[in-house]
Amino acid sequence: MERAAFEALDRADPLAPKRELFFVPEGLIYLDGNSLGVLPKAVPDRLREVAEVQWGKALITSWNEHHWFDLPRRIGDRIARLIGAPPASVIAGDTISINLFKLLGAAAKLNPARRIILSDSGNFPSDLYVAQGFRDLTADGYELKVVAPEEVMAAIDETVAFTMLTEVDYRTARLHDMTAVTARAHEKGALTIWDLAHSAGATPVDLTGSRADFALGCTYKYLNGGPGAPAFLYVRPDLQDRVQPALAGWWGHAAPFAFDLDYRPAPGIIRNQCGTQPILSMAALDAALDPWDDVDMQAVRRKSVALCRAFIDLVERRCGHHGVSVAGPRAFGRRGSHVSLHHPEGYAVMQALIAARVVGDFRAPDMMRFGFTPLYTRFTDVWDAVAALARILDGREWDKPEFRAKKAVT
Amino acid sequence: MERAAFEALDRADPLAPKRELFFVPEGLIYLDGNSLGVLPKAVPDRLREVAEVQWGKALITSWNEHHWFDLPRRIGDRIARLIGAPPASVIAGDTISINLFKLLGAAAKLNPARRIILSDSGNFPSDLYVAQGFRDLTADGYELKVVAPEEVMAAIDETVAFTMLTEVDYRTARLHDMTAVTARAHEKGALTIWDLAHSAGATPVDLTGSRADFALGCTYKYLNGGPGAPAFLYVRPDLQDRVQPALAGWWGHAAPFAFDLDYRPAPGIIRNQCGTQPILSMAALDAALDPWDDVDMQAVRRKSVALCRAFIDLVERRCGHHGVSVAGPRAFGRRGSHVSLHHPEGYAVMQALIAARVVGDFRAPDMMRFGFTPLYTRFTDVWDAVAALARILDGREWDKPEFRAKKAVT
Repeated sequence: MERAAFEALDRADPLAPKRELFFVPEGLIYLDGNSLGVLPKAVPDRLREVAEVQWGKALITSWNEHHWFDLPRRIGDRIARLIGAPPASVIAGDTISINLFKLLGAAAKLNPARRIILSDSGNFPSDLYVAQGFRDLTADGYELKVVAPEEVMAAIDETVAFTMLTEVDYRTARLHDMTAVTARAHEKGALTIWDLAHSAGATPVDLTGSRADFALGCTYKYLNGGPGAPAFLYVRPDLQDRVQPALAGWWGHAAPFAFDLDYRPAPGIIRNQCGTQPILSMAALDAALDPWDDVDMQAVRRKSVALCRAFIDLVERRCGHHGVSVAGPRAFGRRGSHVSLHHPEGYAVMQALIAARVVGDFRAPDMMRFGFTPLYTRFTDVWDAVAALARILDGREWDKPEFRAKKAVT
Repeated sequence: MERAAFEALDRADPLAPKRELFFVPEGLIYLDGNSLGVLPKAVPDRLREVAEVQWGKALITSWNEHHWFDLPRRIGDRIARLIGAPPASVIAGDTISINLFKLLGAAAKLNPARRIILSDSGNFPSDLYVAQGFRDLTADGYELKVVAPEEVMAAIDETVAFTMLTEVDYRTARLHDMTAVTARAHEKGALTIWDLAHSAGATPVDLTGSRADFALGCTYKYLNGGPGAPAFLYVRPDLQDRVQPALAGWWGHAAPFAFDLDYRPAPGIIRNQCGTQPILSMAALDAALDPWDDVDMQAVRRKSVALCRAFIDLVERRCGHHGVSVAGPRAFGRRGSHVSLHHPEGYAVMQALIAARVVGDFRAPDMMRFGFTPLYTRFTDVWDAVAALARILDGREWDKPEFRAKKAVT
């Protein structure tokens, strides 16, 4: 197999023209879009418009005239289409952790007789922290039960109030079966909360079809909303008016400008809003979603699987003898859109790769992580990334003090 | 008194040069900076830099190289100086409602034997909603007791766990005596949470001197951080390591990139962070604070009082016979930096004023609200605003269908 074959794949790729809608730095192979997506070209102009015209000139009137109040709902509808959810079931805002807390409160109140929150050890740790904070704040005797990912199905029993799972594991890319887990939960009288941080924009989530009760996710990874871009949450339509907001604020009030002293939740998804949202970041996210409106998530999935398969095949063929092994399941139907490689010197190897302008990231103890973002990753990027990895491993280029010295992160 | 006298006041104003640092639309008298501050000139360039260079080119490395992780703490320190707080006691992020929820959790855990949350009916309603949500979520028997503002002191007794008060009333501008209320609370074994939404950047708050336990506020009013700009919170230094975060997330973890499954709060103010923050909005706020670094809050206060006094004097002299009356206390030592005027046709009068390019806002049932922002409001603005108001009232210009028809707000 030669690079020419990968060039042919790029030529035949129906998503290839999308790359023109993003700024990808010249000469950089960016395989970290699963952490921070690249800059969509529509964003800088939108930011300028929002700052200089809407804020600078129209000032306070922009809340209505330029639809600032409405942005979270409008953006929610755009995201909804990408995760198999109907209009008016998703709202953008706050952070993923805050939205998770909201949904913990909602799920707890909807299943009041039970006290077990079931999660797994592959969950993103911050989700577990949020649940621990929730447990410790409420005096209601909640217990956070954390099992191995493969034990989740068996652990769903009549004691579980709700599951709290991230669909795609941030390290191994293992994909939970949302439909099967949700069916099992419902059979046992439990609810489900799904974190779609590594799913939205990467895999064809089907919230409606799976009957998931609640979901949330971030927009700064595959959706390219920008650093710390507002998150989103989903509530199944038939549950929406039964949600009792734990984080009750005026943006979720039925009549925010009546300034009543008593909280009265708005109908529908709106009640899950709390405080005033950061409009500059929200507007950037709105512009970042422009490339997505005509995208078929099945086409994204096909390319995602093809990219991951090509990467894994090449890595095993060219780097397997260096002790590199692939984390997570091998069946592509059970994987998300990133690939982590175990290697005992993974940290140093990743630093050498970054020095060679191939950007992934490192997750302790030994995982090099590479994200494949079908809207702007090319098949030739996969070829070139593995070529760089093979050269670094073949020549032990990673074995230099500047690559081995672990930098303090944050 | 003539306009020339106000021109002389502007010439003598030591803060007058600050106006050049803001975009104030030509011909507009903007007296709504207490709702949304104007655009600081430094913001558009900063947004361009953050989007196009930091995000667009440096990508993921900007979290460290461009100090994205550190922004909430750095901004916190800049705000701290303006509210009488020491370094490392304030952190920026999330919304005012979310930060209030955090502090409700913190205060509750620090005073575990008591169940009364004391607030007043002049509080911003969203604060009351947050407390109602907190009360209903925790099964701990909390009770929200809401008294009239003037009854707060007497209502602080040995049953109160903590007070939750907004220092400056969003309608009447009545200013609570933070030092006296806090002293009374401490004497009775209660803690205090202060909402500084209408104080930060407007009045010389002294968190250290008043011994306030907790505070929070927004940055989109007098601090001009932009629509929905990140909020801030303060914890008294000696309490910081005793706070048990209710909203526990990875940004508040002692080692966020260790990815431990168990939450362990960071030392100090950092633990009050939760999820990943919206960096575009955060960077805009950082730029918006540039004009403040050399500002003496006592000078701000002097000009604020002078502007409010001039406005009230002129209104009473020129419009008093039209049934206009000033809300809130008359003593300037007991007022914040805005003035609300009662008038039975307040809504229509405000619409006529806005049509005449004098922008304030309206608060039900009958209040026209005008904010005075000393960094860019001129004394001649006060003169011209009252001249417009007098003309509208004298000529009954407000009595037109287009001004009387109430628009649906959001």
